[in-house]
Amino acid sequence: MAPLPPRSGDAVFANIERVNAELFSLTYGAIVRQLLTDLEEVDEVNKQLDQMGYNIGVRLIDEFLAKSNVSRCADFKETADVIAKVGFKMFLGVTASVTNWDADGMSCSLILEDNPLVDFVELPDTCQGLYYCNILSGVIRGALEMLCTSY
Amino acid sequence: MAPLPPRSGDAVFANIERVNAELFSLTYGAIVRQLLTDLEEVDEVNKQLDQMGYNIGVRLIDEFLAKSNVSRCADFKETADVIAKVGFKMFLGVTASVTNWDADGMSCSLILEDNPLVDFVELPDTCQGLYYCNILSGVIRGALEMLCTSY
Repeated sequence: MAPLPPRSGDAVFANIERVNAELFSLTYGAIVRQLLTDLEEVDEVNKQLDQMGYNIGVRLIDEFLAKSNVSRCADFKETADVIAKVGFKMFLGVTASVTNWDADGMSCSLILEDNPLVDFVELPDTCQGLYYCNILSGVIRGALEMLCTSY
Repeated sequence: MAPLPPRSGDAVFANIERVNAELFSLTYGAIVRQLLTDLEEVDEVNKQLDQMGYNIGVRLIDEFLAKSNVSRCADFKETADVIAKVGFKMFLGVTASVTNWDADGMSCSLILEDNPLVDFVELPDTCQGLYYCNILSGVIRGALEMLCTSY
């Protein structure tokens, strides 16, 4: 049987259960605030957000594979594009742009023009050094690691 | 100028920014897990979830009032109906049913048949007594308190 064609992030996003982005953004803010209170050190909060994201990513990859019909990526450049255009769209409803590739094609940046996690967020000066959205890099790390392990 | 007609939860939900419900459910699970690790006592986790919900509710009510066009409720029964049919739909994409009214009409239950917060959730025996979704009652408490204060 021929594989199903890949679906765009838009198409997938239109057909999945969703919740209000403001509720999500406020709930995420409540996590960060809680971690800042409990852990006190900004570095520790960054680490914990990454770890929480990792735990989410190892679960979320199943939904991604089940609903996106994306097939194996040929290389890391394609992987980055799929994360930016399909993954972000499917889960956050926005797309990222991929830039800042290094000469070896081993690292790049994903830039979110419109990031629902930071709506309404104002950080006080005491939060310098906080990677507020660090959960997102954890999610990507967890999701990619599952692919390396399973496929 | 005549007031705008109230909009159904469905109509509002169709026109607001949304994120993937699975991402929300996993993110919420990460909060609860974090609180269980940090606070250890289930009662303390229940309290903290309620407090986080309260902080969210006092913000979320603004979005509700801005987008729902709901006018002042005549009584608590109507308030409960609006929360169940418009509020839950607008933020979680589901509706609740209102039951268990006491004789005085002072207390009732909101029952969620389909609750996106509990997708994929399995609680170990050590979590007995945990009100996993306690954030929701906190949200309602915070939102209603803002109405008492402001209007």
